[in-house]
Amino acid sequence: MGTTDVAPGGSSNSTSSNTYRSSKMAVWSLDNPVFITYVFYSTVLAAKMILMGPLTGYFRITRKAFVNPEDVKSFGLKETKTDVDVERVRRAHQNDLENIPIFWLLGLLFVLTSPSLFAAKVVFRVYTAARILHTLLYLKGSGIRGTAYFVGILTKIYMVATILYTFW
Amino acid sequence: MGTTDVAPGGSSNSTSSNTYRSSKMAVWSLDNPVFITYVFYSTVLAAKMILMGPLTGYFRITRKAFVNPEDVKSFGLKETKTDVDVERVRRAHQNDLENIPIFWLLGLLFVLTSPSLFAAKVVFRVYTAARILHTLLYLKGSGIRGTAYFVGILTKIYMVATILYTFW
Amino acid sequence: MGTTDVAPGGSSNSTSSNTYRSSKMAVWSLDNPVFITYVFYSTVLAAKMILMGPLTGYFRITRKAFVNPEDVKSFGLKETKTDVDVERVRRAHQNDLENIPIFWLLGLLFVLTSPSLFAAKVVFRVYTAARILHTLLYLKGSGIRGTAYFVGILTKIYMVATILYTFW
Repeated sequence: MGTTDVAPGGSSNSTSSNTYRSSKMAVWSLDNPVFITYVFYSTVLAAKMILMGPLTGYFRITRKAFVNPEDVKSFGLKETKTDVDVERVRRAHQNDLENIPIFWLLGLLFVLTSPSLFAAKVVFRVYTAARILHTLLYLKGSGIRGTAYFVGILTKIYMVATILYTFW
Repeated sequence: MGTTDVAPGGSSNSTSSNTYRSSKMAVWSLDNPVFITYVFYSTVLAAKMILMGPLTGYFRITRKAFVNPEDVKSFGLKETKTDVDVERVRRAHQNDLENIPIFWLLGLLFVLTSPSLFAAKVVFRVYTAARILHTLLYLKGSGIRGTAYFVGILTKIYMVATILYTFW
Repeated sequence: MGTTDVAPGGSSNSTSSNTYRSSKMAVWSLDNPVFITYVFYSTVLAAKMILMGPLTGYFRITRKAFVNPEDVKSFGLKETKTDVDVERVRRAHQNDLENIPIFWLLGLLFVLTSPSLFAAKVVFRVYTAARILHTLLYLKGSGIRGTAYFVGILTKIYMVATILYTFW
């Protein structure tokens, strides 16, 4: 990696040949445990989001509530229909769409700020737990889903603030 | 790019000063054909998604179906209106929103698992073809769009499984 | 970075120790000012999008317009209700969902094409300004929000074209 790479946030120079871990470049490296933590939790959130589509399909089929005429026909029904449970799953899914892709970006950029592994684990785990909880509470019709929502928002605001503070 | 490059996923150590290519770091490198394949297909999917917005606009204008009073006024119409074709394009677009950003994340992380170029090409091409086909079938009102949808879902589940297996 | 790095798209070799800008790998490096510019503007857009959720909540509360029975109950109301202002904020938010995640991907990949810092700044700033303006115009009910929308679309088409031209 050559010479005079400066460690992220640090000021010392390194002349060793194994400087890639101290190089700023290295932060999106598989050698960086913070990055691996990001990879893991963002994949968990992706898996959680993928499930929402088939879940909507399950509710549409069991509630016989389809919005496309071709689906109505496929299932031997007579007309399109909306159903409160289907609409509820769809709102939970929509809330994911409004939130999780922002986490994917911010988490990736947050890794660049060289947080401690502990801080990164707290942030990524709290966010992941908040989003899974949000969906469960939403599907149950619990009035406290808003708390899980705002925990997610606060986690993201923390990442935004850290990123802007580091790179502005 | 120097000598003694070890393929990602290999086990031999390198003591040369050119270790960055043998480092796992190199997987998001423009020297990695798997990564280039990701860049290409995710850009194709972005282009496909960009088109959905103007396509909705086209249907709104030709069907004279606007939802904002200011648009109704701009086009010399009298009232807001919904139209079945506009709603259909919007559902196809919404389905993209629920699916393609997940691919962008998972594809990027899948590159980190050092798949073979062949495996990566199959996965990325199948997903891209499934999503383009899904939109075409949706716009035509075909009842078999669900097959294209599930091919996309299965492709993503494969990537999720590979990523979690690699990094857990 | 060692020796004989080939510049992206170029053919000359470099033997200096400051080759990171000419290395293909280095483009997602914190040493690359184009990348830092991307990090900054994509975070600004994330912050802008995060605000849309609580803004919708604010309108729901002040307009007493809730869609979930449990929320209706929490706020001591009697029935679910839709409200034109709430629906307008939601459409502005939806438009962000349809656009900004595409920018996060394309901007990241555009960095890989090694644009000049000037070009990158123009593209990222125009896009960010267009999206913020779009929301403000949408919330005001201005008929010219479409112009801001199309500036955003054109910016993304430019990035798509540059990426495909570079990597095809």
